[in-house]
Amino acid sequence: MEDVARETGITKSSLYYHVSSKEELLSRALERAFKWLLGVLDEPGAQSGTPLERLRHIVYRGVIITLAFVQEVELLQRVKGNTPTEREAMMRRRRFDSEVAKIVREAIAAGQVDASIDARLLTRLIFGLGNSLTQWYRPDGRLRPEQIAEAVSHLIFEGVTRRN
Amino acid sequence: MEDVARETGITKSSLYYHVSSKEELLSRALERAFKWLLGVLDEPGAQSGTPLERLRHIVYRGVIITLAFVQEVELLQRVKGNTPTEREAMMRRRRFDSEVAKIVREAIAAGQVDASIDARLLTRLIFGLGNSLTQWYRPDGRLRPEQIAEAVSHLIFEGVTRRN
Repeated sequence: MEDVARETGITKSSLYYHVSSKEELLSRALERAFKWLLGVLDEPGAQSGTPLERLRHIVYRGVIITLAFVQEVELLQRVKGNTPTEREAMMRRRRFDSEVAKIVREAIAAGQVDASIDARLLTRLIFGLGNSLTQWYRPDGRLRPEQIAEAVSHLIFEGVTRRN
Repeated sequence: MEDVARETGITKSSLYYHVSSKEELLSRALERAFKWLLGVLDEPGAQSGTPLERLRHIVYRGVIITLAFVQEVELLQRVKGNTPTEREAMMRRRRFDSEVAKIVREAIAAGQVDASIDARLLTRLIFGLGNSLTQWYRPDGRLRPEQIAEAVSHLIFEGVTRRN
């Protein structure tokens, strides 16, 4: 809390007026990440269309949200279940993962996604790729979020090999 | 050092007989990771063939090595440059990255890889995907390293969309 007070330039007592503890600070940041990430699943593009179309929508929008809330998503990744807030976050993260895994399986069943890749593994790779963005992305960097979301989608769905 | 002694069941003085410090322990683990990862670039498959063939070889073998030395590679990812050992590791990691980036650019120039994705971004995504494996892979898990390396290669080069 002392670090936060110093960084934001307010006194520690002012900070405690707004948030009661470090735990609450974490809880609020995770709340923001979930509100937006889980929100993607409720968007029209994730609700209608073929499984492949829905999956494409979730990947693209998931990247956009990850980049817009890069610090919150990074926190979410680090959660290990040490406190009630962290355990709650892990449960919601798992629910998000399994919703996406379900759509992956539907896309495979519909013959739209290659059945040679194991569905759970594929879901993990998609999340791994999306999560890795927080390691290097800087909002003031050279690439716009839309460019990155396009590239990630292209990699996942079309692959990089050029076909003639 | 105390934790390492406890975990390995040897006395602290025996441990110090073999390694002089925590720094040396880290240095040896990183050395192992680099020996194998950089070794991939010297393999025949990475040295001959078209740029796309060489890139495919590096991705496949990079995954195999990452999974075989998952703890060492995880350490390598966490290095932040706080000590001389860490700074040395960061330099070697950058050299590895730029070698791969060079082959990506060659594959684009040869018309084998889609030019619509920025080469530096593509290199980052490939490394991001490979590095994400350390987050969940367990040697005693359900999937064999070869299956995972196949799936990662398939995702990167062919994408998951089924073509009829």
